[in-house]
Order: sequence, then C-alpha cells, then structure tokens
Amino acid sequence: MADVDIRVLSVGTALPGPPVDNAALAARFGMDRLWQEWIDLFIGTRFRHLALDLETGAIRCSLADLATTAGATALARAGITAGEIDLVVLSTATPDALMPATVNVVADRLGINEVSTIQLQAGCSGAVQGLDVARKLLLSGAHRTALVLGGEMLARFYDLSIDLAKLPPEQLVNYVLFGDGAGAAVLTSNPAPGACSLVSTLTRLEGLGRAPGATLEWFGPGERGERVAATEDYKAIEEHVPVMAARTVTELLDGLGWRPDELDYLLPPQLSGVMSARITDHLGLPEAHVVSCVDEIGNNGNGLVYFQLERALPRLAPGDRAVGVSIESSKWIRSGFALERR
Amino acid sequence: MADVDIRVLSVGTALPGPPVDNAALAARFGMDRLWQEWIDLFIGTRFRHLALDLETGAIRCSLADLATTAGATALARAGITAGEIDLVVLSTATPDALMPATVNVVADRLGINEVSTIQLQAGCSGAVQGLDVARKLLLSGAHRTALVLGGEMLARFYDLSIDLAKLPPEQLVNYVLFGDGAGAAVLTSNPAPGACSLVSTLTRLEGLGRAPGATLEWFGPGERGERVAATEDYKAIEEHVPVMAARTVTELLDGLGWRPDELDYLLPPQLSGVMSARITDHLGLPEAHVVSCVDEIGNNGNGLVYFQLERALPRLAPGDRAVGVSIESSKWIRSGFALERR
Repeated sequence: MADVDIRVLSVGTALPGPPVDNAALAARFGMDRLWQEWIDLFIGTRFRHLALDLETGAIRCSLADLATTAGATALARAGITAGEIDLVVLSTATPDALMPATVNVVADRLGINEVSTIQLQAGCSGAVQGLDVARKLLLSGAHRTALVLGGEMLARFYDLSIDLAKLPPEQLVNYVLFGDGAGAAVLTSNPAPGACSLVSTLTRLEGLGRAPGATLEWFGPGERGERVAATEDYKAIEEHVPVMAARTVTELLDGLGWRPDELDYLLPPQLSGVMSARITDHLGLPEAHVVSCVDEIGNNGNGLVYFQLERALPRLAPGDRAVGVSIESSKWIRSGFALERR
Repeated sequence: MADVDIRVLSVGTALPGPPVDNAALAARFGMDRLWQEWIDLFIGTRFRHLALDLETGAIRCSLADLATTAGATALARAGITAGEIDLVVLSTATPDALMPATVNVVADRLGINEVSTIQLQAGCSGAVQGLDVARKLLLSGAHRTALVLGGEMLARFYDLSIDLAKLPPEQLVNYVLFGDGAGAAVLTSNPAPGACSLVSTLTRLEGLGRAPGATLEWFGPGERGERVAATEDYKAIEEHVPVMAARTVTELLDGLGWRPDELDYLLPPQLSGVMSARITDHLGLPEAHVVSCVDEIGNNGNGLVYFQLERALPRLAPGDRAVGVSIESSKWIRSGFALERR
C-alpha cells in the first residue's frame, strides 16, 4: 500500500452572498468605530460571507446547496463524472439536519448513487479528517475515486436582534470570527500524472481531560435555548493551538523524512487572521510560502482547508512540497496533511 | 489486503433506565387500551429504554455516558487497554452537541489519546457505516485496533406535555418506535484465533431523487421549532425497506460466494418488531436463525446492531456464517455486513 499514490485531482469551493466587512457588521449591530478597530487589530479578519442576509434576515442557501456547488465544480475541474465517484465524504459541524445526513442530499443532487457516503461531525479538524479518512479508504483498495467535501452554515446561530455590546467576549467573538462556505476535492488512487499527491495525513485527539476550548450546541424542538449556544475560550486557544500546530508539523515532516527547509508551502490553521499569523510565526518556517485566506473569507470551519488548497495547488511546481495544519479546539484535535507534486 | 482478517474481539452495550412497556407509555400520555393494542399489533415493539424519566422529566444520562459504558465493557471483554486502541469511530443521529463531537468526549473519558477519532452523522445505517469505515481503515494498514461505537439519545425530542391523540401518524409513531441506548465493538487486524471475522461490509446510497422517508431536525438557539422535528413516512418504509434488504443480502452473499442455505444467522433490519418480522419473511432464508431485539429494547438507531451482535457472536460456532442488514430510510441507504467464525 505504501507505494500507492493518492492524488488530488481538483478542488472546488462555494461562498454565499457578497463579502461582509467589519464596517457593515458594526453598522448592522450598532457598534462603534472603536469596536471595528478592535476586530481589525485583535481578530484580523476583514471579511466573511454569510448565507444569512443581515438586512432582511432571509437565508440564501443551505449547506447542501453550497456543498453541491463546490462538489460540481471539483468534478468538472477534474473531468470526472458522477458515475466515476465510488466514495463521498462530507465533514461539517453544522449539518442541515440530523437526518438525512447532508452528504446524501449532496450526492443525490450530483447524481452519485450506489456508493458509500459518510458524513463526519467535526469542528476545525473536520476537513483534514475527511481527507484522512478518504485517503485511507482509497489506500485500502475498497474505493478508487472519492469526492471529499466540507463546509459550514451558521445562520441558525445568528440572532439579529442581539445587542453585541452586552455579550460576554466568548460569545461576541463568534459574530466576527466565523462565516459560511463549502469546499470539495476529488481524490483518486488511479494514475494521474502531474497531479499533486496527498502523501500523508494525520489526526490526533489530544483530549487529556481538558475542557473543550469551543462548544456548539443544538436544541430540540421544545427547548428554548437555555444553554449557551456557542462559546470560544480564546485564551486557551491562544495557549494551546501554536504548540499543537508545531507538534503536527514536526510529526508530518519526521514521518516523511522531510527537512523543514525543504518545505515550499505552509497552509497554517485558520482561526482568524491574527491567530494564523501568530501560529505561522511560532512554526518558524521562513522558507515556506504561507497560504492563508481566513482574513478574506472568515472562518468557515470544515470549508477552509479547501479554500487554501484551491489557492495552493496551482502554485506547486514539480518537486514542490506543502504541509497543511488544522487544530480543533472543541476537544483538542491536531490534524495535518502533506502534499507533493512528484 | 484481501487476506488480512479483521476480527471482532468483543461487543458491549448500555441501556438507560428500566424498560418502558406500552402500558406505561399509554398511561403517561393518557392513551387508552385500544391505542396500546394498536402498538402491540401494528408496531410490535413491547419495550424501549429512555434516558428521559417519563414521570419527573429528568434526563438520566447523555449519549457520551452510554457510549462510555458500552465502550468500557467492550474493552474489558476484549482484554484490550485504552493504549492499544489507535482508532475510535462513533456513529449517531443524535450527538450530545455539534462540538465537541461526542466521540472525543468518550475517547477522553476512556483514556484513549493521540489517535484518530471520527464521528459519523447517520441514521439507521450508521452502525454498519461505522463497522465499514473501521474495517477498511484497518485494512489500509494505517490502524491496528479500533473501538467502534454507536447509539442514540432522544430526550430532546420528547415533549411530555403533548397530546398524543392529536398527533398525525407520522409524528405519533416516533413516540413508540424509538428508544435510547449505545453499543460498542473492538475490531482488530492483529491475529486473534477463534474470534469472529468481519469478512465483508457494504453501504450503498440509493437516493435516486426520492424524498427522505425519515427526517430529524435540529434547531438553533433562537428557533422555536416551527419546523416539524421528526417524521416517518411509514408507508414508503414498508414499500422500500424489504426490497433494499433483499438486494443487500444478495450482494453480500454473491460477493463472498456464499449460498443462501449456507447462512447460519441473520441479523435483520430493526425498525420495529412487526417490520423486522416482515422483512425477515421477505428475505426467505428459512435455514438462518434470526437475531432480533428491537421488540425488547426499542429502535435505538445507531446502537441496535451492537445489541444484535452481542446476542449473535456467542452463538456462532466454528464455521458458522452470519449476515446483518440495516436500511436507512432517511435518504435511503442500504447497508450490511458478513461474519464468519473461521
């Protein structure tokens, strides 16, 4: 198995609506210029895309809509038909429903049938979990060509009547960090000369009895949201994520026998613009080009890695090597992958 | 890879509270003797276990609690320590939260760390999806020993103030069909003489543009349950499930080169007592012993296959063969597996 190459044939992405900048967010929620500057300085995310229209409250699309668009784009770019896909994997923290799983709606809309479909429930490590599971299922020989998707749809968590000034910081931050979006990639174990190889993937729970650094609740039909829906322990994230990211890069490089100075591209964790820059500094890989986009599109969770891949893949020349890292703070998972254009 | 045997070392299960019979359910919701007889006759599920105390409204435990108990039992029965587990897979339709994924809470409580953990969002095919993914990840050579779990926790969907007599049939049926519970199994690619081999697994989306036969919604913190939370299209299920089950058995047997009369045990789909009996009749395998338990414990979704396995495994003598089938009506997935004590 070790000599089977898993190739990334293509990537596709989808974003809802126009970019929403911090000024628009501040205006909508009645926040002042100081607040806007605080976002710019401490969060560093300039735009996000939202399925929810902030003015009208209308929801433009579902996760299935975005994932279908991203998946169709990836299939078209790969020149692969629905009938050639024998595995579909979708990862998300925010499925459209508990049943049916969104992956099955997406597969059905794309005309993919009679194959295995799985949906991973995960936070920020979910895209890498999807790539990891798909890669290993292809390596098992049971499948040949996979459509792997990921994305988020946060509309149900937006309360347009809220007074942001009264929110505690761990809830306030959710209104500026996150956005909606979806991405997809086509992976294959078939020969594909010139395509990038996904040469390594890893995901590692680092629970260790620690409290979750991020939580997202769902509610039953009779519940009235007594529990807090979403929290971020930004301090715990600042403390743990750079360390976990460094450990992940080291484990990937060591496993492949790559030296740090042989790395051409780095796709760092994408919590926020400021945090991604800080983690990148901590990793200390000055020779690697950094591929980040969270400051432009917001943190769309299980989607983001695909947006980074979409930017990185065309830049990788023959012989180039890249490493991507995602850290999940919800219950502390470090995850990463390595690419090489062989 | 084809000559690597994936063994089922053990199974463990967990149920909350005492069994709730139809008389207790009828009394609690003010239904009469006729209603109780209707359940007995047309549903055929005599008991279910509920995490929700119907008298007090207190919730006894979480899915993480049940899955941890089931997982600990499976580990103890296999004589496997937490440190030997290098993959954890949990499947459910009803996770405790969107983040963190319940699988990570369970793994952390069991002392499992620094390994891959994945959670599948699925309906009635989820347990087989978990076994399928785990088996193939073991076959890939990337992992050696997996803890695979599944279960449901429906408390958030129970409205104790409801008037059952006023519910339309597609919602009423949810109050009698379903229950809570969790199960777990330890799978390994290490040699394990005498253990049952999981010789085949399959899952197949059969979407075909059909509407979902079952739906389960989640709600955001500001939503007031305007959407219907759970529906069952019992007629569509009656129509499609027996046919899909038969197709699954045929595909499994053909793939293994087994004749129908060589099958010693059948673990049929477990929607309800009556439906399981009807599907079993439709499958026409009179020589196979049937292992069913839905009539005793209720339909606990992603948990049920583990309860069937717990009953079946000790009965399989050397040379015996078994096939299990689960059909998901939410967006129509057929799934199954085959066991042999080699």
